[in-house]
Amino acid sequence: MIRSDVLDLLRGDLGTAVATDEAALDTARADRSGHAAPGRPLAVVTAESIEHVQSVLRIASETRTSVVPRGAGTGLAGGAIGGAGELVLSTLGMDRVLEISVDDELAVVQPGVLNGALNDRLREHGLWFAPDPASRAISTIGGNIATNAGGLLCAKYGVTREAVLGLKVVLADGRLLELGHRTVKGVTGLDLTALFIGSEGTLGVIVEATVRLRPLVREVPTTIGTWFRSVEEAARAAAVITASGIRPAVMELLDPKAMRGIADYLQLEAAGAAYLLVHFDGPASAAEAQGALGVVQSLGGEATVSHDLAESERLFAIRRAFHPAMAARGNVLIEDVAVPRSALPAMFAAIADIERRFGLEIPTVAHAGDGNLHPNFVFQGDEVPDQVWHAADELFLTALRLGGTLTGEHGVGLLKRRWLERELGPDQFALQRQVKAVFDPLGILNPGKVF
Amino acid sequence: MIRSDVLDLLRGDLGTAVATDEAALDTARADRSGHAAPGRPLAVVTAESIEHVQSVLRIASETRTSVVPRGAGTGLAGGAIGGAGELVLSTLGMDRVLEISVDDELAVVQPGVLNGALNDRLREHGLWFAPDPASRAISTIGGNIATNAGGLLCAKYGVTREAVLGLKVVLADGRLLELGHRTVKGVTGLDLTALFIGSEGTLGVIVEATVRLRPLVREVPTTIGTWFRSVEEAARAAAVITASGIRPAVMELLDPKAMRGIADYLQLEAAGAAYLLVHFDGPASAAEAQGALGVVQSLGGEATVSHDLAESERLFAIRRAFHPAMAARGNVLIEDVAVPRSALPAMFAAIADIERRFGLEIPTVAHAGDGNLHPNFVFQGDEVPDQVWHAADELFLTALRLGGTLTGEHGVGLLKRRWLERELGPDQFALQRQVKAVFDPLGILNPGKVF
Repeated sequence: MIRSDVLDLLRGDLGTAVATDEAALDTARADRSGHAAPGRPLAVVTAESIEHVQSVLRIASETRTSVVPRGAGTGLAGGAIGGAGELVLSTLGMDRVLEISVDDELAVVQPGVLNGALNDRLREHGLWFAPDPASRAISTIGGNIATNAGGLLCAKYGVTREAVLGLKVVLADGRLLELGHRTVKGVTGLDLTALFIGSEGTLGVIVEATVRLRPLVREVPTTIGTWFRSVEEAARAAAVITASGIRPAVMELLDPKAMRGIADYLQLEAAGAAYLLVHFDGPASAAEAQGALGVVQSLGGEATVSHDLAESERLFAIRRAFHPAMAARGNVLIEDVAVPRSALPAMFAAIADIERRFGLEIPTVAHAGDGNLHPNFVFQGDEVPDQVWHAADELFLTALRLGGTLTGEHGVGLLKRRWLERELGPDQFALQRQVKAVFDPLGILNPGKVF
Repeated sequence: MIRSDVLDLLRGDLGTAVATDEAALDTARADRSGHAAPGRPLAVVTAESIEHVQSVLRIASETRTSVVPRGAGTGLAGGAIGGAGELVLSTLGMDRVLEISVDDELAVVQPGVLNGALNDRLREHGLWFAPDPASRAISTIGGNIATNAGGLLCAKYGVTREAVLGLKVVLADGRLLELGHRTVKGVTGLDLTALFIGSEGTLGVIVEATVRLRPLVREVPTTIGTWFRSVEEAARAAAVITASGIRPAVMELLDPKAMRGIADYLQLEAAGAAYLLVHFDGPASAAEAQGALGVVQSLGGEATVSHDLAESERLFAIRRAFHPAMAARGNVLIEDVAVPRSALPAMFAAIADIERRFGLEIPTVAHAGDGNLHPNFVFQGDEVPDQVWHAADELFLTALRLGGTLTGEHGVGLLKRRWLERELGPDQFALQRQVKAVFDPLGILNPGKVF
């Protein structure tokens, strides 16, 4: 079927929800990965209801048109980029919180609700949706679920998968499916809810989510910011804190290249070489922080402790300045390897080695509590230079060798596709594709992504 | 292929690992559900290595023989029962802990390791595997994973799925597959690890697991045992505790029929009508318990508080006596519905109504923190009476109507099969079966279970 017919069918069903202006199409062919599709998609359809989504998928199935589900477009792996001949199906218009249950500690939300907006609503009920990707102010719950988003709090509070009880999804043929439960427990057959979490739009379109909430942490948190002379010392301190049974909510590590960038950006005068930010919440935060303070000081760190929110915010500001500091220098490819925590020192050593061999600087921040590192490559121009990809390739293979993974929380999308089979092995890679085919036999859902 | 050839092939590869004596076969055709297969399986093969498992599955595929994976046989839904013409593949011989990493807070274990035995080993390292089905002293990690086992601690510490990082599985055709990660985060493609958790032996055989550990809780816990005049009062107290943001590790509720049975069994003189057991661990346990004590007392409860392990054990003993007390009266069908916590009072009212209509007594214990109820049916004779199944049918439909599920933690197995499609709906039921077929195209893995 030819292009104009698809658009006619869509306009017939959805009217003004179908946008084809250049601005909309150009927005939809890019995300925050720095990558953009060479061509423009056919249209961007902004669904406002489950019926809209079903209608788009029925038309797409009939006309064999590819559909790229998309939330706020904050992805870092190109998973929601629409290219030539594709329809971009935006769920940003489905942005209502349908239910908040204090007694059952759950919320039912549409996929376009922003993570930050949901938490604003929950606060007055004394509740909290724990998944906290760095993008939380601007990313949607649907996108968080589609990528199984991580963040800073995962070692203590888990990834997005742990916060989703049930989903409504629309399959490629337009059928609506209800998965999961409103209960904490439930073991009726295969866990298709978990299968959809992190599936990056390849199995269906998430149109509603029942998410698990936690009581809001009411106690004043304690934060410790510590300067170390080297990244090795900081990594050792992080390892000792974990091994001593202390469970921080946040434990972030900035290496010397990252710190130099931040010091320039913030015009800090007295920055140390490496920075370890450790944050405790909950009723035992003061006691736990006392234990961590002993660890960082005995290992040579120079620590600042905050017991109030304003001072805590100043300690966090150093960490938060990392991405703006990098962005101020050029375009940035943010990588996302994860290794077992014990391999963090080895991974930092390998990054230093890759820097030397490729003549690059790779400022890195790590979620030290869970072993997830974000090595950053700053480059000029629109395209990621080959040299950077060669270095990234080394980075991925090193993470795999150390027992890790090539993506801890950003997903595979377009940018990591070529490495996926390497990590999964041919058998699992083939099985994953067969599972996808069960849900999307025509292969119209986000083709060319992930697999 | 005829039966003797299968056994010849198995004995050729596995020798004395193949048992065909009546005692072994009779054990394998039953579990703790009270149900037994009418016929005996062909053989029980006790695998001692991954290669053994691969060998069994290759022979089973060649000869189209059904295979029932089995751990310790403690299941309550008939999921690991082997019947006529089937091979039972036991992983009880694969019982080694392969690795314990303190730094990475993980263990790598074979599937036949008992949950309790693993925790005994972990204690000296200051670590803990949190999933705690009531069977933990006698059930295997492989079985816990195959059923996504729950337990008493789930509202605070999650179900088994939250404690598994990666799996090695053998597919129906004998291929070995490695799924998941050694890291807390990892989003490379579809989450097949989560798909296997709770799949009850229908997708493959779990031959190794990388499980996530937690620091052992070192503080002395606080336990409150409270008598209430009615189950409604006890349920209200449980709801208020949760709504006030307090997060107990354990919150168990025994209804008056359960309490009468326990009082008889333990020869208690001063038992109240309903019992609420609330247990707090972790660094804030004393403060949290103080809050809960205020709640139960203000709602009319008569509370006993313990701050030491011996007294706490006495309070727990009442709850632990429930299953022995029921078993002393006859055979027991233990049901396992779950409802949103807010629906607990409605579910208790419905149980009372079902008791009246069917002329039965249904003593019930609830994990009040997560809404999971275990109504018990005591009967005489080998077969569950039709009257009991009719009452159970009403129970399941009521749970579904209240937004719940027909099984919170025991699984579908044989006993809940006929209700599964009712809960999932025809589309999801069909999709689940198609997903199974991707992994087991010949349908030799645990046929007739779940689906």
